[in-house]
Amino acid sequence: MTYCVGMLLQDGLVMVADTRTNAGVDDISTYRKLHIVAESDDRIVVALTAGNLSVTQLVLSLLKEGLPPAAEEDPRRFVDDAPSMFAVAQMFGEAILIATREIRETVEASQVATSVSFLLGGRIGDGPLMLYQIYDVGNFIECREDKPYLQIGESKYGKPIIDRALKFDTALDEAVKVALISFDSTIRSNLAVGRPLDLIAIPRDRTKPVIKRRIEADDAYFNDLSARWGMLLREARDTIPDPPFMRGVVD
Amino acid sequence: MTYCVGMLLQDGLVMVADTRTNAGVDDISTYRKLHIVAESDDRIVVALTAGNLSVTQLVLSLLKEGLPPAAEEDPRRFVDDAPSMFAVAQMFGEAILIATREIRETVEASQVATSVSFLLGGRIGDGPLMLYQIYDVGNFIECREDKPYLQIGESKYGKPIIDRALKFDTALDEAVKVALISFDSTIRSNLAVGRPLDLIAIPRDRTKPVIKRRIEADDAYFNDLSARWGMLLREARDTIPDPPFMRGVVD
Repeated sequence: MTYCVGMLLQDGLVMVADTRTNAGVDDISTYRKLHIVAESDDRIVVALTAGNLSVTQLVLSLLKEGLPPAAEEDPRRFVDDAPSMFAVAQMFGEAILIATREIRETVEASQVATSVSFLLGGRIGDGPLMLYQIYDVGNFIECREDKPYLQIGESKYGKPIIDRALKFDTALDEAVKVALISFDSTIRSNLAVGRPLDLIAIPRDRTKPVIKRRIEADDAYFNDLSARWGMLLREARDTIPDPPFMRGVVD
Repeated sequence: MTYCVGMLLQDGLVMVADTRTNAGVDDISTYRKLHIVAESDDRIVVALTAGNLSVTQLVLSLLKEGLPPAAEEDPRRFVDDAPSMFAVAQMFGEAILIATREIRETVEASQVATSVSFLLGGRIGDGPLMLYQIYDVGNFIECREDKPYLQIGESKYGKPIIDRALKFDTALDEAVKVALISFDSTIRSNLAVGRPLDLIAIPRDRTKPVIKRRIEADDAYFNDLSARWGMLLREARDTIPDPPFMRGVVD
């Protein structure tokens, strides 16, 4: 499995993905699921992937090779030339459909799940930061202020903390903390999600640096965050008054 | 959907179930999923149910009517007469198989999911407190000290807090708090789980009272717990040091 989260906030975009893949518990490996699809002075485009690894790799390869042109005499179409994030989201949808046609019939005949999903985030030219979730059949939705995050993969374990601790105006470093706590909760409860984690933070303010970070299995900050979070949860539990209806049961 | 949790601890047994059922978002109703199957001086047997409502109701009705005897001249078999919790778990397994035979073929033909699961807890005679998870095909597992809880239904949202804040030697009132926080997290993240909640706490010490409690939508203690938990999570987030790699991004 996989867990990926994207947060589109007042101050910028945060995207985090784990790296664990497994085909059964006896076949666990590490694959990067955070892909920088385009990066230049005028654009940064990041994709997080979940689902069948052969399909997500095929989608990314198809985009790298360029999608077939509309007319035969036209050049192939690349993310590097796309005029907007919306156009890139459409290209991802198209690539998913091509990959599906190429792979699905034969793979599904052998009872292997081929579904995939993507989080696509970034900025092109003078356009705004955008975050999309792209579904299995190529359609997509846009992240909006009312619910400023999107998740794919094993999303349930890490959802409550985000629902509780993240708002559109949460500062970018606090949002990174929330994302990492969400991963910590997921990792503790589900063996199929694991470190290293890949993280990118793109400030809305273009004068500030883009942060890219791999959080390894021995990352001191993450280990400290994990230990503190466990302690703080137990303290929080202690702080809440005892259920009045349990009087008489406990000494 | 449904969320149910059972905790078998040093000091006793805690079982909690929500009451929301839905067949689509336009058909939401309240059904009790915590059932006291037997209660007398010598026994208390509680079942929590998840899955297809018509199947779980059929299972409970079959047990209430009594299972068919082994030999024709024998009396029907009732939970009230079972010699142990293990025997009751076997009876549940048997009832599930009978219900399955009666209902599944016809219901599944109309593409309706018929899977069910049960948490079965309680104590019979001088026997110990027991907690079982009974699966769809009638087999079951026993809750043990290493992982002192079992969940059925929408279990993922509420799992991280239990993994973090519950141990075998957690006091019974603290365990009730953890269970309620687990429900609060689930309810906030998933519309298909909702109050009222039904709760039972059975102290291992037989001189102490069994606590039964319905937590309504306006329950003051639960509302306070929910508000405090949200505040404590945000405080905990603030308490954790900022990610050192985010310096230069935030003012």
